[in-house]
Amino acid sequence: MKSGQRNSAALPAGRPGPGGRPVDPPQAGGQTQIMSVPTLQWLDPPRGPAVALLDQTRLPAEEKVVTCENVPELVDAIRRLVIRGAPALGVAGAFGVALAACRGDDVAAAARMLGEARPTAVNLAWGTRRALAAYQAALGRATEPEHHNQDPQRLAAGAALDEARAIAADDAAASAAMARHGLGLIPEGARVLTHCNTGSLVSAGAGTAFAVIMAAHQAGRLDRLYVDETRPLLQGARLTAYEAQRAGIDYAVLADSAAAGLLASGAVDVVLTGADRIAADGSVANKVGTYGLAVLAQYHSVPFVVVAPVSTIDFGTATGGEIVVEHRAAREVTTLGGQVLAPAGSAAYNPAFDVTPASLVSALVTERGITQPVTTGNLRLLNARPPQRKSAPADVSMEL
Amino acid sequence: MKSGQRNSAALPAGRPGPGGRPVDPPQAGGQTQIMSVPTLQWLDPPRGPAVALLDQTRLPAEEKVVTCENVPELVDAIRRLVIRGAPALGVAGAFGVALAACRGDDVAAAARMLGEARPTAVNLAWGTRRALAAYQAALGRATEPEHHNQDPQRLAAGAALDEARAIAADDAAASAAMARHGLGLIPEGARVLTHCNTGSLVSAGAGTAFAVIMAAHQAGRLDRLYVDETRPLLQGARLTAYEAQRAGIDYAVLADSAAAGLLASGAVDVVLTGADRIAADGSVANKVGTYGLAVLAQYHSVPFVVVAPVSTIDFGTATGGEIVVEHRAAREVTTLGGQVLAPAGSAAYNPAFDVTPASLVSALVTERGITQPVTTGNLRLLNARPPQRKSAPADVSMEL
Repeated sequence: MKSGQRNSAALPAGRPGPGGRPVDPPQAGGQTQIMSVPTLQWLDPPRGPAVALLDQTRLPAEEKVVTCENVPELVDAIRRLVIRGAPALGVAGAFGVALAACRGDDVAAAARMLGEARPTAVNLAWGTRRALAAYQAALGRATEPEHHNQDPQRLAAGAALDEARAIAADDAAASAAMARHGLGLIPEGARVLTHCNTGSLVSAGAGTAFAVIMAAHQAGRLDRLYVDETRPLLQGARLTAYEAQRAGIDYAVLADSAAAGLLASGAVDVVLTGADRIAADGSVANKVGTYGLAVLAQYHSVPFVVVAPVSTIDFGTATGGEIVVEHRAAREVTTLGGQVLAPAGSAAYNPAFDVTPASLVSALVTERGITQPVTTGNLRLLNARPPQRKSAPADVSMEL
Repeated sequence: MKSGQRNSAALPAGRPGPGGRPVDPPQAGGQTQIMSVPTLQWLDPPRGPAVALLDQTRLPAEEKVVTCENVPELVDAIRRLVIRGAPALGVAGAFGVALAACRGDDVAAAARMLGEARPTAVNLAWGTRRALAAYQAALGRATEPEHHNQDPQRLAAGAALDEARAIAADDAAASAAMARHGLGLIPEGARVLTHCNTGSLVSAGAGTAFAVIMAAHQAGRLDRLYVDETRPLLQGARLTAYEAQRAGIDYAVLADSAAAGLLASGAVDVVLTGADRIAADGSVANKVGTYGLAVLAQYHSVPFVVVAPVSTIDFGTATGGEIVVEHRAAREVTTLGGQVLAPAGSAAYNPAFDVTPASLVSALVTERGITQPVTTGNLRLLNARPPQRKSAPADVSMEL
């Protein structure tokens, strides 16, 4: 039995220099620069086998790495939202299966435990199933003559690890393709407004909407990024601002309710968001506040663009009206950390997301291209279109 | 010289009972029930002369009373936002002059100090000027034969105190008239959405928009109040929720960005807000987020009603475009209490208010009646209309 969950010493978060760019803290011997702390990192022996996660619950106050040396530790980290976001959870689940296999644990039991860590995260169960299937197929192949000199367990563990890496690479490739397609919608000198967190913290690549923003930044096309703080959980202020600062993007955080005045002032050229789920009619379920932003964008004649992989489209849900809105605990609104924001006992209206009808979505960017207008028919055509993939490998922001 | 500023022991804030209504804490000997802590209270000897203020900076976590026994203490309390809001500041300034007069201090110097405590608060300077004028007029009258047996200082101090009480009563009467007129716009079983804080914490009466909400509640016409938390300073979550809880109103706090989905769900019958300043063309400058709410209300065909006294209309400002939007410190958005919400060094777009064009305002409720539609011509007619006052005395929520 290995030692329990190991938390590395907290690294101080980057302090801004005079130009507003983060300045690296003094380097401790052998430590990774804070600018490159990955969302998820696979550690081989002698440091592993282990899965190292950037603790998103501590951002932006500190960049702390949680190193999970066994599956129960990883399940705990997933439950505590140390890692979050559909694509990243798929990757984490697959690496968890690989971790169990490398340790010689009961891999099927580990996969089951991981898949149930967050019941509503379909990607998590999907990622663990894919890695488990690769493991079991390799175990079956190990009895074949050409493998007679090899350790079946070791062979199968290698296959699970390869599958986890493939899932991450697919996710990164989809990010890169969305960025490439989306860049075509971003004008020179663009001032972009975004909501919630859609970057490399939720993906093995650059994410969805944030991947397009990064591409615009790298192409010298981004003048300024406006980041909705995204109440109640502040994923914009905490996480998107953190990613923007690391990337050297000129950004400003705003209260969500300040977006209307900002749009009225003519300071926004395009609004970019991600999506949690897209119904067959093109209705977009996404973080609460997305719908209001879409109405305000249309009112001010500013394009409202959604960036999401094709896997986000749920053809089993015919219309936006069928999407059940999850309502969450009042304390997310009425308290923050230990602070009391509203009187004890206050009720709260706290939907986790809202639904934006397709008529308010100017364009949908996926890894297969741009869909415009967003209609039931066009989404069906998109689904039938073969996946496009560039021959050049995509950047993978997780260290695998 | 009296003892320094005296803070009473913090009283625990009301805890909700099973029905969500506040339950009174156990009574300490002689203490006022927490349900009746007034925004401002004048204390006669032997407890005074003093001005006791409910410390709004500590709400809703605790109901603490700050007792100011001299003008420097009151000036400090005003600067620290212990008391805030245009009408309440006018009243506080007038009572400050009365306090100086009762103590035998230099009253003109005290009035000057009070008037400059918050330079942009025109009501503060106006209230102190009115009380000072009453004091000086009484001093002059004291030389007349019919007063030859009376102490001139005591007579003048009494006049200043009477004037302060008259200012508070006028404010309360305006509140009552706005409530009476506004009630006509509230349907039976109304579900009301409001923004920021507009109740008895900013007024000697029931306030502006919140006065209408209270009237609807008392008339049994209010089904539910939705309270925008009102980022960044959370006046909705902290103060309006506190006032709603004290009044026994069924309310729910929401993230400002959740209002769009709430409106789309058909759960709101009318949106009510106050106003900081109204231009001659009917454009309404108010707490940031008001404009977005007005656009969303129109999009969902929900009436958007502004409640404000006629003194809020600035006929010297022709159009909304002339209103200069104040931008405030980034730390209001990027930190909360001691907590870091965004990476150190993050810029913020943090306007204190926004401007809603008159075309989005369904009706303007003032103490003189309802103006609908809100146009330059109709505002001129309103200004020419004589003040209406009911013969019955208005409730004064401050204890005078």
